[in-house]
Amino acid sequence: MDFSIQKIEAFLRLCATLVLGLTACTLGLSTQSKLIFYIHRKITFRDLHALECMVYVASLAAVYNLLQLSRCVFSTYYSNGNLNKSNKYLSWVWICYLLDQVVVYLTLATNSAAVEHSILAITGMKEFQWMKWCNRFTRFCFQVGGAIVCGYVACALMASLTFISAFNLFRLYSPQKFLRLKHS
Amino acid sequence: MDFSIQKIEAFLRLCATLVLGLTACTLGLSTQSKLIFYIHRKITFRDLHALECMVYVASLAAVYNLLQLSRCVFSTYYSNGNLNKSNKYLSWVWICYLLDQVVVYLTLATNSAAVEHSILAITGMKEFQWMKWCNRFTRFCFQVGGAIVCGYVACALMASLTFISAFNLFRLYSPQKFLRLKHS
Repeated sequence: MDFSIQKIEAFLRLCATLVLGLTACTLGLSTQSKLIFYIHRKITFRDLHALECMVYVASLAAVYNLLQLSRCVFSTYYSNGNLNKSNKYLSWVWICYLLDQVVVYLTLATNSAAVEHSILAITGMKEFQWMKWCNRFTRFCFQVGGAIVCGYVACALMASLTFISAFNLFRLYSPQKFLRLKHS
Repeated sequence: MDFSIQKIEAFLRLCATLVLGLTACTLGLSTQSKLIFYIHRKITFRDLHALECMVYVASLAAVYNLLQLSRCVFSTYYSNGNLNKSNKYLSWVWICYLLDQVVVYLTLATNSAAVEHSILAITGMKEFQWMKWCNRFTRFCFQVGGAIVCGYVACALMASLTFISAFNLFRLYSPQKFLRLKHS
């Protein structure tokens, strides 16, 4: 396996880890207190279950990308310059491919749920008599908005990583026969 | 290209088209009227913007999979039994791969947004004084729930299709060099 793709992968994993960490921290630390109708109200990410879910998934994805990053840096499989086509290598590449897919789908799903919850907090919903809340907790809403943008950047980075892991996996297969390895 | 993968792809595309069509129709036709506080209230998918978005994206994805299905059935590129490695073929496989990715991400994102909106309609949200509404429009909520399950089945089918399109694309590349075609 050539060296350049390994470098690109390591760089993307590093960026994804950092952006996911930033997402989780921004969301986790965003909080605002306000006096509303003579009651002291404090809002955190725990009050919106979609945001809570997003914090956990972003943290999980950050840890996953960190582990994969250390694999990129330290693994001998990827750095020996030769294509090792043992069964162990093949199953490893398959696992990376599938895990990458699962992580990007999970992150995208929780991100989109958080966007939906935030849109409802911004616009409210007349049909259901749901009031909008973002005009009361403006700073909190801006922090959440920033975290969501970071979340989508992370999704884009991880989508390019699935591209690389798919490339790493499927180029091992024969172009003529279905799921038959090359030179076998 | 061998025949079996083409058959599997056509079958999956057919299933995805049908399930997406079912999703869009179930959502689009779900409606319920009720007398609430002496006011006649009718609820449709248009009242929840996440559901409206999901109807459009599911319809779009169904049309896309139908077009791809017709490509599977009629295209000479895929049925001549030989691997055609012209530039036209390569760009075509690249386009299929990228479009498949975009469509599955879009569908998953709108599905998750719809789930979030539905969860809020089921549970309400005490912190924001948002009332739950599903106890009033039970039949409508069950219809939406069914459509969302269908939506996730469609996502799973399309995820397996991205697997096939990645396989079709990357097996053309050399296992030694980055983005270098085989036999070139």
